[in-house]
Amino acid sequence: MAAKKQAKLSERDTKTLAKINGIARQALTQASRGNNPALEIRTRTLSNISFNQKKKLIELGDKTQSREFFNVAMARKFMQTMLVASKCKNLIDEGKTISIRQMFYVCKHTLDGSNENTFEDQDESDPIIEDLEVGIDALREELHLFAKRRGGLVGPLVVRDGADDIDLARMGSGAWLIPSICEDNVLKFVRCKAEFILFVEKDAVFQRLNEDGFWKQHNCILMTTEGQATRGARRLLQRMALELKLPIYVLVDSDPWGLYIYSVLKQGSINLAYESMRMAVPDVRFLGMSAYDYKKFTMPKAAEIKLTKEDSARADQMKGYAWFKDKKWQREIQGIIDNGFKMELDSLLAKGITFMAEEYIPKKLRDKDYLQ
Amino acid sequence: MAAKKQAKLSERDTKTLAKINGIARQALTQASRGNNPALEIRTRTLSNISFNQKKKLIELGDKTQSREFFNVAMARKFMQTMLVASKCKNLIDEGKTISIRQMFYVCKHTLDGSNENTFEDQDESDPIIEDLEVGIDALREELHLFAKRRGGLVGPLVVRDGADDIDLARMGSGAWLIPSICEDNVLKFVRCKAEFILFVEKDAVFQRLNEDGFWKQHNCILMTTEGQATRGARRLLQRMALELKLPIYVLVDSDPWGLYIYSVLKQGSINLAYESMRMAVPDVRFLGMSAYDYKKFTMPKAAEIKLTKEDSARADQMKGYAWFKDKKWQREIQGIIDNGFKMELDSLLAKGITFMAEEYIPKKLRDKDYLQ
Repeated sequence: MAAKKQAKLSERDTKTLAKINGIARQALTQASRGNNPALEIRTRTLSNISFNQKKKLIELGDKTQSREFFNVAMARKFMQTMLVASKCKNLIDEGKTISIRQMFYVCKHTLDGSNENTFEDQDESDPIIEDLEVGIDALREELHLFAKRRGGLVGPLVVRDGADDIDLARMGSGAWLIPSICEDNVLKFVRCKAEFILFVEKDAVFQRLNEDGFWKQHNCILMTTEGQATRGARRLLQRMALELKLPIYVLVDSDPWGLYIYSVLKQGSINLAYESMRMAVPDVRFLGMSAYDYKKFTMPKAAEIKLTKEDSARADQMKGYAWFKDKKWQREIQGIIDNGFKMELDSLLAKGITFMAEEYIPKKLRDKDYLQ
Repeated sequence: MAAKKQAKLSERDTKTLAKINGIARQALTQASRGNNPALEIRTRTLSNISFNQKKKLIELGDKTQSREFFNVAMARKFMQTMLVASKCKNLIDEGKTISIRQMFYVCKHTLDGSNENTFEDQDESDPIIEDLEVGIDALREELHLFAKRRGGLVGPLVVRDGADDIDLARMGSGAWLIPSICEDNVLKFVRCKAEFILFVEKDAVFQRLNEDGFWKQHNCILMTTEGQATRGARRLLQRMALELKLPIYVLVDSDPWGLYIYSVLKQGSINLAYESMRMAVPDVRFLGMSAYDYKKFTMPKAAEIKLTKEDSARADQMKGYAWFKDKKWQREIQGIIDNGFKMELDSLLAKGITFMAEEYIPKKLRDKDYLQ
């Protein structure tokens, strides 16, 4: 799999290549001096993760783990890391991107003169990719690897993706599928007339609001990720927050899982703590549904869904999170527990098909009725 | 939830309204004559489903079930069906669409002077919607209900969706998200320069082919549904087959589940047998991966994934299906069983990042190496 054609490298690609070459050179130098080649990689365990109160981000700490070549327990992982790094180098050279599943197949082979495979299955290659991200401080996307994409976008925004200018205000009843890789060497914002971004958890809610012309009337960007946001969607949201300087309002179901979707957008996740800096949007606003909307909007009994044991346990757990310690969040979570029920955005339709677009959201925006 | 504004009705909407009014009028007439109002609905059980050899479709038979108002066991369902029908009428009047989850909330309420709810949960309302579809012979989409959307499309095709003309050749690294409702009153084909459609099961494969410019080079439409196709995607594919008269090639993983995705596109599914006529595309071609591609393309051992017991059982089951009785299909399924392994499209990357776009697919197309 030699580099077939040398793609013209962007500044970002040049930097990433230098990082990959760096670890390779370091290993070589150590070996040629008769030392034991080793990689120092920050450990991705709960004990090395903390909430940075000042930056309002979940962060990975400085504890590291050594991965040595001349160590029976570590040699396999050392080799695997170098193999993945070399394949990423090829991808950057060729200007191509692949999925992490595809990377597994690109790397998997039987070592000459043995029965040993480089990788047995993807459970083995995925953590190596994460190691490499942390080890050389490069996003997976910078290594030319793409994650799943999910969700869509519409609104008064023109983006440039490769050679194409795409007007997200002209998507009909459909939407523009959020790309896996939303880095600035691929995706640029050309023109934006939006005044804010409305992020909705569920696609069915997005479709309802789109059909009602909500974003046209309120001059905003409408975005959905169909549940927990993908890496691409989080990067895109952060870039829109920073580059377009737009306020972002988030609409999720009133339950611990909805709150957690908001929370990941805001301060990052435990799993991807090492990338919070490049993905989290600390200013993002929680517009709803709040546990207190039930009374405020005199919701019908049909909206109630009894909390399960799992829901209650999760709510209790979330009350303990450092990033939910503030009184307003404790009150919000307690509100769900006290209600004894959760509510879905969809239940707003019990008040009328267009109630959400015409009354619920406009009132919440008007009253600045959100948490941050 | 009165009709707020009377939308201008399309021909299709007018027809659907007439069907809904028909069952309401029938029930009223029966009641006023002192008869027992009843609905006759075709039963959606396995025993009423068969494979039509001539049309090459899985079809629902003529066995019906009566649903009577004055019958304790049936009264609840009769009322529920009428309730859903009346809410669908409202949606059509207002020119709005909602999800089936949202329909549950629109319908759910406590009956006056009782503790009885119209619906307890969505498991109760979904089958009623299916009953209504079968009962009045209208697609869910014609009742203004949308299902989940998933998957995307790119290629030399311009579609008109509402007021927007969308050029699917200018989607950058992204794609146009396939809408939930692809009926001809919403979506029109404006201009098509494509010569065929390439349907790929997996989004990661779609992204790889899109990046390699496959559809530009081969002048085709590239489509993915990320696994089993949604209703919207199947309707779109059928409309493209009939209206654009394009041949369709399907690429799925070489395993019983991949073959089944192809099979649902081709002759419909058991679950949605009553809609095969409006969703299936009998001419769709199975391009790969075939069990015999392993030798044909000298695939590396890395491509092999051992069949599980579940895979083998599923393969045996599929050999028994009426629509796979033909010798060529028996040979294809037996090929998987004899190999003892399955293969993913992603594994083609073991032969090179661009092997799929530059060698595998072009050779299969050139050699007309497909099953139909």
